[in-house]
Amino acid sequence: MGVTMNPKTDIEIAQHTKLVPIQKLIDDLDLLEDDVELYGKYKAKLSLNTLERLQDKKDGKIILVTAINPTPAGEGKSTVTVGLGQAFNLLNKKAIIAMREPSLGPTMGMKGGATGGGYSQVLPMEDINLHFTGDIHAITTANNALAAFIDNHIHQGNDLRIDPRRILWKRVLDLNDRALRNVTIGLGGVTNGMPREDHFDITVASEIMAILCLAKDIPDLRFRIARIVVGYSFEKMPISVADLGYEGALTLLLKDAIKPNLVQTMEHTPAIIHGGPFANIAHGCNSLIATKIAAKLGDYVVTEAGFGADLGAEKFLHIKARVGQFKPAAVVIVATIRALKMHGGVAKDELTNENVTALGKGIENLQKHIETIKAFGLPYVVAINKFVIDTENEVLTLLTWCNENDHPVSLTEVWEKGGKGGLQLAEMVINIIDNSQNNFTPLYNTKDSIKEKILEIARTVYGAKSVDYTTKAEKQIKEFEKFGWSTFPICMAKTQYSLSDSSQKLGRPRDFTVTIREFKPSIGAGFIVALTGEIMTMPGLPKKPAALNMNVTDKGQATGLY
Amino acid sequence: MGVTMNPKTDIEIAQHTKLVPIQKLIDDLDLLEDDVELYGKYKAKLSLNTLERLQDKKDGKIILVTAINPTPAGEGKSTVTVGLGQAFNLLNKKAIIAMREPSLGPTMGMKGGATGGGYSQVLPMEDINLHFTGDIHAITTANNALAAFIDNHIHQGNDLRIDPRRILWKRVLDLNDRALRNVTIGLGGVTNGMPREDHFDITVASEIMAILCLAKDIPDLRFRIARIVVGYSFEKMPISVADLGYEGALTLLLKDAIKPNLVQTMEHTPAIIHGGPFANIAHGCNSLIATKIAAKLGDYVVTEAGFGADLGAEKFLHIKARVGQFKPAAVVIVATIRALKMHGGVAKDELTNENVTALGKGIENLQKHIETIKAFGLPYVVAINKFVIDTENEVLTLLTWCNENDHPVSLTEVWEKGGKGGLQLAEMVINIIDNSQNNFTPLYNTKDSIKEKILEIARTVYGAKSVDYTTKAEKQIKEFEKFGWSTFPICMAKTQYSLSDSSQKLGRPRDFTVTIREFKPSIGAGFIVALTGEIMTMPGLPKKPAALNMNVTDKGQATGLY
Repeated sequence: MGVTMNPKTDIEIAQHTKLVPIQKLIDDLDLLEDDVELYGKYKAKLSLNTLERLQDKKDGKIILVTAINPTPAGEGKSTVTVGLGQAFNLLNKKAIIAMREPSLGPTMGMKGGATGGGYSQVLPMEDINLHFTGDIHAITTANNALAAFIDNHIHQGNDLRIDPRRILWKRVLDLNDRALRNVTIGLGGVTNGMPREDHFDITVASEIMAILCLAKDIPDLRFRIARIVVGYSFEKMPISVADLGYEGALTLLLKDAIKPNLVQTMEHTPAIIHGGPFANIAHGCNSLIATKIAAKLGDYVVTEAGFGADLGAEKFLHIKARVGQFKPAAVVIVATIRALKMHGGVAKDELTNENVTALGKGIENLQKHIETIKAFGLPYVVAINKFVIDTENEVLTLLTWCNENDHPVSLTEVWEKGGKGGLQLAEMVINIIDNSQNNFTPLYNTKDSIKEKILEIARTVYGAKSVDYTTKAEKQIKEFEKFGWSTFPICMAKTQYSLSDSSQKLGRPRDFTVTIREFKPSIGAGFIVALTGEIMTMPGLPKKPAALNMNVTDKGQATGLY
Repeated sequence: MGVTMNPKTDIEIAQHTKLVPIQKLIDDLDLLEDDVELYGKYKAKLSLNTLERLQDKKDGKIILVTAINPTPAGEGKSTVTVGLGQAFNLLNKKAIIAMREPSLGPTMGMKGGATGGGYSQVLPMEDINLHFTGDIHAITTANNALAAFIDNHIHQGNDLRIDPRRILWKRVLDLNDRALRNVTIGLGGVTNGMPREDHFDITVASEIMAILCLAKDIPDLRFRIARIVVGYSFEKMPISVADLGYEGALTLLLKDAIKPNLVQTMEHTPAIIHGGPFANIAHGCNSLIATKIAAKLGDYVVTEAGFGADLGAEKFLHIKARVGQFKPAAVVIVATIRALKMHGGVAKDELTNENVTALGKGIENLQKHIETIKAFGLPYVVAINKFVIDTENEVLTLLTWCNENDHPVSLTEVWEKGGKGGLQLAEMVINIIDNSQNNFTPLYNTKDSIKEKILEIARTVYGAKSVDYTTKAEKQIKEFEKFGWSTFPICMAKTQYSLSDSSQKLGRPRDFTVTIREFKPSIGAGFIVALTGEIMTMPGLPKKPAALNMNVTDKGQATGLY
């Protein structure tokens, strides 16, 4: 993610960086021996007891990094998050970064890793982008163990009368594998189970991932797992994990995955990397436990949420902040000139050419996201993530627009310069935290009806005119009300490329209607997913996957990761 | 596995044991800081450089622990392996244990863990039996990434002309899940891949697991992965991973999994737990690298191979020892009175009753395995793994038979007494190593034809009269000869319950014919699997899986594992 003209790749820059032993960070953070478990020399897991031990300590300020609607390459939100954390440290502020764990699927496929870029990366990037400390594998295992338990229950007599046609629970793999999107299982006769249709998602789309990221502690993890609705009986009544009796075993499988992981940035700023739910089918933020521990260990916590402010930030503020009962101190909205030009109508292959007119038009996308953050009552700074291809005229146009409209703005060069490239941004963030009003208020109350909640998000966050529901969705609302599920928050599943539910409508669409196609109850996680359009929960591989370039030296060093 | 009348369960005994920090073992073994990576306080990974650093050091003696044909509950081979290692330590001998990593499938299903039992366990048993250091998850990921690459290749134009009906490569999960044995994938139209039949195995049955356990170093790992045959083209020619171009990425995914794991027994004897290929479809031994490192670090290495001597030991001696170019120093043959009575015709629910006559008859099973080890030219000791239910008469009968026939024998009580219960066994093993002839010779030469190799195993190891081949198997032999695969060793896939290929034929069957149903080329691992009868490569769950009893305390401690 970031400048592409630099001769060094991310992995080359990363492998030329001298890491300090993680024990040094542990000591600097005043963590005790019982608070940590080392995973090699540069990774550690933090014990949940740390939170309990530090419960009376004042929390640090939580800064959310979000973005405009991205291009397929992303806007460098992770890079800005890491760079901003590093900048705080250069200002001698005790800052900690909290980020999501990357999924192997996109790493091996097209997108590359998700550990920042250039001189703003979290390290060791090879480990973090591959298996890391095994959290995602544990989630895959717990998810698929539950699937096996469900099919075994049906095979062994089906006391709960689970309807094989109404199973919601899917299997998962942490890979991009389109061939597993739609499968039939249980074939081959009586000894091989009950034949039925099934589907595989990528692991980060699993409800277990969302649960792990919202759980407060082990009892809460078990409570949420127990209430997962895996499907319906022949009598159309919900069947939960508690009905099956496996909440203990599934929680046991996650007993280490729930512990946050401590690593460092290239400038040795502490970073807690933990959990990584998809920002479409789930809420798209690192774990609540990671954010809470970071707030106990640092004076400033820099964290991010997936995709643009219409998806990640909305869910961070409505779901994660609500469960965690915390108030963010400020929001950073990342924009790139390249993406704003795209929102202004420039075709993908012409984004490298200067186009001030298109930029001026595309700015309305940024403007909408600023309005959204204002609607939540939060102070903000716009961070322009500078690319080498950006022209002076373009940069000036964007800065001028921000200044004329009183939007705090900073041109950041964290990819190229690390923390130094984000010093002004850090200073502005500190300034707005200290001197601006913070009237953080969620846009809806959970007691509002499902339709009221969705209308509020669609109008205020997306700028839509109205919301339509398919017949199926209408029917589901009635069912969910009957089951007592209507007081959960809403988790919108929508394209990340547009403020609307149509990926083609760039810029700032107006007068549009959002169509809710279907709902998915994520009762374990504690939200109702509202699906608009087709949401991809199992990506495919491109013709030439990134994996073709990956290798390892005879001494065991990774090559070709980026 | 072991005595069931003891009031304490394995996990209770384990959790009442005070572990020493793994750093203490590291120091005692004279390992350097660069040789190890800590995984928490009680686990460490050993760097492959350790082997290089110690290459001029003399190797320790390798002792193989094998068994008679087991009952479904197993004969306590792991328990004896751990107990024997502990006994060596009590005798002030520098001993190291090398064992396989348990698979989660059986742990959550029926069998329970595979970390020994009673006072002869490797610890921390909760970690080892669950995700451990993530090796098996890395293998699952590499296996399934390759499957995704194959299906993506077909979807994206199929330049290699892979015949979707002739794909050998299966997907895997480290779970017991019968519903995934036979599946159809790629359904749902053009964007979701090419529809085809597929199958899931349990991860420990993956060829990647066998490869990891036979690779000498990272270049050898990549070499073996590159030559995996994933299927055939429409022209019926083999297609390899090298043809697809993913050997680099797949090796990268295994760069940490190939490092052996150091833990400790209940008496703080060092144990290297690494790799765990099935003993039916694969060769059933811990990794060669683990055994090699153990031999550099200890004067005695106690290691095991899966199932009875007809399966695990045969493959240990013909496949692993050949690849590793080492000569075992001695063999321990574990027998239980319970299993010998079963071989003598006693029904499962009457095994708790004294039956000296049946025992006397069942001893012929033990006798055959002794003959096999003698045929390999190796010295041996029979270890009777004593259970509380064994009567004095029964024990005396077995001891007398061994003594009258000049078979070194020791009554061991390692489950109940730990190392102390295996002192005599350890002394006898040292004695036969020092004073017996060791004329170790493989029974066949790899240059022999496929049929010659199989006939030799069937006659000398199983006691069969002859070998039959199905028409399919005959056709495959011709094909394999054409592809140049006939000089690989044979990996027999056979029921573990009988010396024959029929699980019903207990004791010492004679005059039987072994039928080779089909071959499976494991070209990456470097052997040809010969399948007799139906071999289960994806177990199912019982009606009440062990997982129903598992849980975790609010403080994160495992319960209900056994």
